[in-house]
Amino acid sequence: MTNIQTAIQDHFWSHYSELVRQTVIPYQWEALNDRIQDAEPSYSIRNFRIAAGLEVGEFGGWIFQDSDLYKWLEAVAYSLKRYPDPELEKMADGAIGLIGQAQHENGYLNTYFTIQEPGKEWTNLYEAHELYCAGHLFEAAVAYYDATGKRNLLDIACRFADLIASLFGTNPGQMRAYCGHPEIELALVKLYQATGEERYLNLSLYFIDERGSKPSYFLEEWERRGRTTIWAQGEPNLEVYQSHLPVREQSVAVGHSVRAVYLYTAMADIARLTGDSKLSEACERLWANTTGKQMYITGGIGATHLGEAFTFDHDLPNDTVYAETCASIGMIFWARRMLQLEAKSEYADVMERALYNNVLGSMAKDGKHFFYVNPLEVWPEASAKSPDKFHVKPVRQKWFGCSCCPPNVARLISSLDEYIYGVSEDGQAVHVHLYIGSELSFETGGRKVSLSQKSELPWNGRVEFSVMIPGSTNDGIAFNLALRIPNWFGSERPTLTVNGETLQYHVEQGYAIINRAWNDGDKLEWLLPIETKLIAANPLIRADAGKAAIQRGPLVYCVEEADNGKPLATLSLADEPVLSESEASGLLGGCVVVEGNGVVADQSGWEEGLPYRPLSKKRKAVRFKAIPYYLWGNREPGEMSVWLRY
Amino acid sequence: MTNIQTAIQDHFWSHYSELVRQTVIPYQWEALNDRIQDAEPSYSIRNFRIAAGLEVGEFGGWIFQDSDLYKWLEAVAYSLKRYPDPELEKMADGAIGLIGQAQHENGYLNTYFTIQEPGKEWTNLYEAHELYCAGHLFEAAVAYYDATGKRNLLDIACRFADLIASLFGTNPGQMRAYCGHPEIELALVKLYQATGEERYLNLSLYFIDERGSKPSYFLEEWERRGRTTIWAQGEPNLEVYQSHLPVREQSVAVGHSVRAVYLYTAMADIARLTGDSKLSEACERLWANTTGKQMYITGGIGATHLGEAFTFDHDLPNDTVYAETCASIGMIFWARRMLQLEAKSEYADVMERALYNNVLGSMAKDGKHFFYVNPLEVWPEASAKSPDKFHVKPVRQKWFGCSCCPPNVARLISSLDEYIYGVSEDGQAVHVHLYIGSELSFETGGRKVSLSQKSELPWNGRVEFSVMIPGSTNDGIAFNLALRIPNWFGSERPTLTVNGETLQYHVEQGYAIINRAWNDGDKLEWLLPIETKLIAANPLIRADAGKAAIQRGPLVYCVEEADNGKPLATLSLADEPVLSESEASGLLGGCVVVEGNGVVADQSGWEEGLPYRPLSKKRKAVRFKAIPYYLWGNREPGEMSVWLRY
Repeated sequence: MTNIQTAIQDHFWSHYSELVRQTVIPYQWEALNDRIQDAEPSYSIRNFRIAAGLEVGEFGGWIFQDSDLYKWLEAVAYSLKRYPDPELEKMADGAIGLIGQAQHENGYLNTYFTIQEPGKEWTNLYEAHELYCAGHLFEAAVAYYDATGKRNLLDIACRFADLIASLFGTNPGQMRAYCGHPEIELALVKLYQATGEERYLNLSLYFIDERGSKPSYFLEEWERRGRTTIWAQGEPNLEVYQSHLPVREQSVAVGHSVRAVYLYTAMADIARLTGDSKLSEACERLWANTTGKQMYITGGIGATHLGEAFTFDHDLPNDTVYAETCASIGMIFWARRMLQLEAKSEYADVMERALYNNVLGSMAKDGKHFFYVNPLEVWPEASAKSPDKFHVKPVRQKWFGCSCCPPNVARLISSLDEYIYGVSEDGQAVHVHLYIGSELSFETGGRKVSLSQKSELPWNGRVEFSVMIPGSTNDGIAFNLALRIPNWFGSERPTLTVNGETLQYHVEQGYAIINRAWNDGDKLEWLLPIETKLIAANPLIRADAGKAAIQRGPLVYCVEEADNGKPLATLSLADEPVLSESEASGLLGGCVVVEGNGVVADQSGWEEGLPYRPLSKKRKAVRFKAIPYYLWGNREPGEMSVWLRY
Repeated sequence: MTNIQTAIQDHFWSHYSELVRQTVIPYQWEALNDRIQDAEPSYSIRNFRIAAGLEVGEFGGWIFQDSDLYKWLEAVAYSLKRYPDPELEKMADGAIGLIGQAQHENGYLNTYFTIQEPGKEWTNLYEAHELYCAGHLFEAAVAYYDATGKRNLLDIACRFADLIASLFGTNPGQMRAYCGHPEIELALVKLYQATGEERYLNLSLYFIDERGSKPSYFLEEWERRGRTTIWAQGEPNLEVYQSHLPVREQSVAVGHSVRAVYLYTAMADIARLTGDSKLSEACERLWANTTGKQMYITGGIGATHLGEAFTFDHDLPNDTVYAETCASIGMIFWARRMLQLEAKSEYADVMERALYNNVLGSMAKDGKHFFYVNPLEVWPEASAKSPDKFHVKPVRQKWFGCSCCPPNVARLISSLDEYIYGVSEDGQAVHVHLYIGSELSFETGGRKVSLSQKSELPWNGRVEFSVMIPGSTNDGIAFNLALRIPNWFGSERPTLTVNGETLQYHVEQGYAIINRAWNDGDKLEWLLPIETKLIAANPLIRADAGKAAIQRGPLVYCVEEADNGKPLATLSLADEPVLSESEASGLLGGCVVVEGNGVVADQSGWEEGLPYRPLSKKRKAVRFKAIPYYLWGNREPGEMSVWLRY
């Protein structure tokens, strides 16, 4: 992919990449250094300093705290690639130097075991996250090398990867083990792609193959540890860690949802690189289950906070929901890999759904406050007073003790350009997955081609493309351009014009395929008029029965107390909702607001303290106002709901 | 109250008292002896045998396991009072002998501390339930003495009570402590009433007065124990144990719901016996909060399984509900005491609601299976697969490791005659709180009077009373008869006839007052025609917004999968529900079934694995069938719901 470059220039998304560059990355650096007032300390940098012998103290934070620094470095790398910044790069180099100092002679690198339990390395693969942290190191190293051309972090990563490759595998004397938290598998694929070293791909394949084999390594290891665990009680739960079955035999998404999608991401990578059809079939089955039966309309996954986990098909409660930010980010990673396996629009549809709703909504407008849990229904008093909902926060938090999500958002948004296009190896097929203003450069048949995209999404559905072929002699360069037809678009086909003339096209796997010889200056217009729609959930999803959600293009909407009063639960859609749209430039930084006819229960006659009485059908007509879900929780804390009774 | 006798003879309830006598009591004896196959062992009898030195072993079960035997003995006593049974009495005497052998020289009695932690007595009032178990011993002793005239258990109880009275109080050298789980307070009032010993009333008053005083005994004790606890983590949570404030300052029901209502029951007792208006005002405030803002329509209380606790006003989720059986039984105890403080029909309304719905529904038709949690909405797959709902069982269980509820049901049902009437000390006012066929005997002005009640409730609202005055010379005996006008009755006044003639009456506190001189043979007819009604919840109760429940007389109804298919959540009431009633003599032992017009979502066109799509308003008309809530879960396990969308 070295001959492909993408640069985002978008009226909607550039704001967010700027926010990440100017605010999120500096803010998170302060957080990693424990300099955010009134926020839980991170301990990340301090742990590395202690492990490097520069400071004395105890390990702080979670056992996987190292990964926060790695994820920050990865985000920094993506940012540096687009916006060189010597100051930031110096800061990053300093952190990398510190990481190097904390690395052992033999390549081992993990501040928890170095500080807290030296000698106990690799004795708790089930819970101790050593390989997981290594994975985040590898991802950061590859990104930093790609952005700066510097090998400083890559060399650290390779030394550690080489140690791991020597310790794990099927050879005599090696551990037949794998990590409780998948992550290293996808990271090793990146390391392979960056270095060309097949042993990293093979190591990833080994971890994938070994997972779920019998007898279970996790059970044996638990016995060896005298049946002790860090968090879990009793015998390891193999489903929670997706190690209950060999991965090729898995069909249903189970367990901790972030672990699950990180694993499936690597499975899709390996399936593509090895052509293993058993693995790609497993990916397809797991995809169908996850996105068809266990995904919220916002692209969130994980129905319960207990184990941050999937529960079972069609169980998607809106108020006790988990829908962790990291899990939706993992969905996006996975969707991207599925698109590389096979360009089907449903993968991009899910990618877009998760991106514009669950993930984007996790970050406050200021870039300094984040949701870990992304609910579809909030009653702030319940979040404060009902232990069943303590995990559902009505306002974004500054920083979390377990702060996996904020740096994950930063690295996703700062690498968003990698998710827009898919270009085949030979440059003969260019898929447009996301409609985000950007410029793509690639090569086909030895010629350089640029494709410039201008998009008015998510507010309007007008997208323009211009083809630029430097030094063109108008002899035409043939390649297929494939434009995704989003699943939120109606049953009609979108209108396509090329140089002002309407063009017929055929559709493959949800993409409009335009097969022609392109010339410099060719202009395409792709019209996806956006309508506001009421969406129903499958009747098997009990939590949404009798309810509808509002969706406008890729954006799911919600109603908030700030606009509609409370209790929000008494608001329903009128028989004729008559939805209307209006631009509200002053609201929450500007957005399109949807209004509609609703009814609310008549609260009169309910004296204080009367709990039940004969039903009266007296109801009051109101005009309700809905805002995009990703903007919720940016005003006074209040009730919120995505689903409305009809 | 020794001059008042009540005997139930009722077409509906006699079945249950017979079931308790013939099935529940023998079954529970087997359970207490660990002889129920495939059920969790109780260890109760075994613990007493070990404590008595008759067996060697470890303590088994919960720290409060002794109370199960005491509650069983209490139920046995009530049963023996109505149905003498030498065999059963012999069995009970044997158990009492065993209890006596386990009692220490100084009166102390608790098998956990005797077996497991001798020397640690009274060091963990917060959690160890010693005084709680003592309370259940006292209740059983009083009931057994009242039923049989035998002092064997009463003497054991008094010896222990005397020890407690010497240890706890405000005198120098005494512990200024009280129990983490209220229960002894109400039991000491019974012990006082049975023995006439004022020191027991004073001890109860002391516990009531001391609770919630500062500095907190529980916090100090926790420090003394080196900050260790049995279950709780960290510092004792004073709200959970209702010790956050002196009881007279409490206004909102908080914490563990069984603890709360046991405490409030004793508070109402003491308020009545001492005339303490501060205490009765606190009872009224707590009553208004509990029943007006924190009670399910089934009479259940406790909104969360975490801590088995109240959460906050109007938070009454139907699917993650707790609504423990014991808590509703405690509500009934409390309502009874509130009626004794002041005869207001709202107390009896709640008593009836809890009795006919939450409590009655907790026991299976066979008397051998019980619910601990009484949900208003069940999705069996979620109970099996979502950790948020593991506590909600779709089928009644044989026996529980923590088996507080089944013996509590037994003792309530076998003493139900005590809840029907209220007779003033002078016999001049007779309140009828519940319409249950029975015969009441009391004295007024030195004359014996009997009142015979025949009731067709809960199916029909016809109630008849006959007055019997033995040796009457038709000179007339004046007393007030007060008949409760149930809150489920309409806005019209019920029709009352005396000896065939319609009688006008005035209403006081929700009771029809009939003030006349009564003669032997007088006959009253009291007509409460029962209508099926749709009931709405207060709009502040978010969980029930846009929904209605069906109620017929005192019975709340529910829909079950067995009658209506699934997913039940897609069923709503039609605009014109046209409810109809029919007797179904063959269904679940006979009941009145309610049918109505409903609509269900059209499931056609939802291909497997399609989670969301544009809303179609296509719906299918159906005729749904509802059964009384107390009968749910007696067929194939399936979905159930009390509330229906309208």
